[in-house]
Amino acid sequence: MTFQEAFPVWNKLHSGQQDLILSNLRFQAVKKGTMLHNGDTECTGLLLVKSGQLRAYILSDEGREITLYRLFDRDLCLFSASCIMRSIQFEVSIEAEKDTDLWVIPAAVYQRIMEESAPVSNYTNELMASRFSEVMWLMEQVMWKSLDKRVADFLLEEAAIEGTSELKLTHETIANHLGTHREVITRMLRYFQSEGMVKLSRGAVAILDERKLEALRE
Amino acid sequence: MTFQEAFPVWNKLHSGQQDLILSNLRFQAVKKGTMLHNGDTECTGLLLVKSGQLRAYILSDEGREITLYRLFDRDLCLFSASCIMRSIQFEVSIEAEKDTDLWVIPAAVYQRIMEESAPVSNYTNELMASRFSEVMWLMEQVMWKSLDKRVADFLLEEAAIEGTSELKLTHETIANHLGTHREVITRMLRYFQSEGMVKLSRGAVAILDERKLEALRE
Repeated sequence: MTFQEAFPVWNKLHSGQQDLILSNLRFQAVKKGTMLHNGDTECTGLLLVKSGQLRAYILSDEGREITLYRLFDRDLCLFSASCIMRSIQFEVSIEAEKDTDLWVIPAAVYQRIMEESAPVSNYTNELMASRFSEVMWLMEQVMWKSLDKRVADFLLEEAAIEGTSELKLTHETIANHLGTHREVITRMLRYFQSEGMVKLSRGAVAILDERKLEALRE
Repeated sequence: MTFQEAFPVWNKLHSGQQDLILSNLRFQAVKKGTMLHNGDTECTGLLLVKSGQLRAYILSDEGREITLYRLFDRDLCLFSASCIMRSIQFEVSIEAEKDTDLWVIPAAVYQRIMEESAPVSNYTNELMASRFSEVMWLMEQVMWKSLDKRVADFLLEEAAIEGTSELKLTHETIANHLGTHREVITRMLRYFQSEGMVKLSRGAVAILDERKLEALRE
């Protein structure tokens, strides 16, 4: 896949804009676990995923995390370039959850094109609306949904992403995704295990009864 | 204040676009308590507040509410016209918290102008980013902040909005703003009262010790 194929509104750019992007583009191959953007660091730029998986999350003062959303192939990450809009007043962190190939578009370049191009600006609107929707979904989960449902949901989603029911996940990792404490997750997983839904082993959770987890989810 | 003065990017529109808006604009004067937009109803249109106060909130299946943000004079409400972007996949409700004068811009009219005008589209981006920031702030509150801080925060904010320390608020109303149950708020307010921070009476909360509430807030 070339950048031109991956970038969503490439054909709506005129050639001057295309040249500006291509001559400022940077390709990066990063290892799993790499921090790509820290809430409080400089404006990293827009990240376009070629292949791999990124995770966007927020961090509390005490170091607790909660996952906001994931980015997969062809997804564009806007909030690593939050300087392009002055109204973005929150900080997210972005890390590579898998080995990831990506392109970095410098913030100033994207901003300049967005300001003059209605298609790029409208695309950016759709992009933000789609992240906003994910965060609103999460908010509703956190507000109204009990933790057992959220854990069941998370395990099933992971199984779908990884294409396996044998999940390599520590309790700490699950807690960081869901914004809670490790002890709370351990207690919940033990309950799931006692109900025959999962089998726990060191650094791993195996889903035994998907239908029972599904039922819990609703 | 005229519509032309209140609409944020009026001078960036060409005359055809200005005429299109003016000939489709609707003025409305609504009473406190009026529901202006229900999550699941039709696309109401963009609401521009001339004077008054609107509240945007979400609703759980069980009827619990949580306030997302407020809209004051000159604020433009985008999510009452969520049909203009297909990526907006969540539903908010909008009610008048005070008697409010407002203009309604039909969604299709705004959408048409946004699609052809980079300034309007970029303005919409800033608008969405600013609501997104408010929701992220709220999310962090809900995730990491204990309820005593959130109640203190809410009371002080209300006092600032209303310009008085004598707040006409039922416990039910406070619960609906914060996404919790009335009983929980009643217990918290009684604790605040026992600490000398507030005085409770029927349908009202008077702030007695603002500094103590402020201290709690941090």
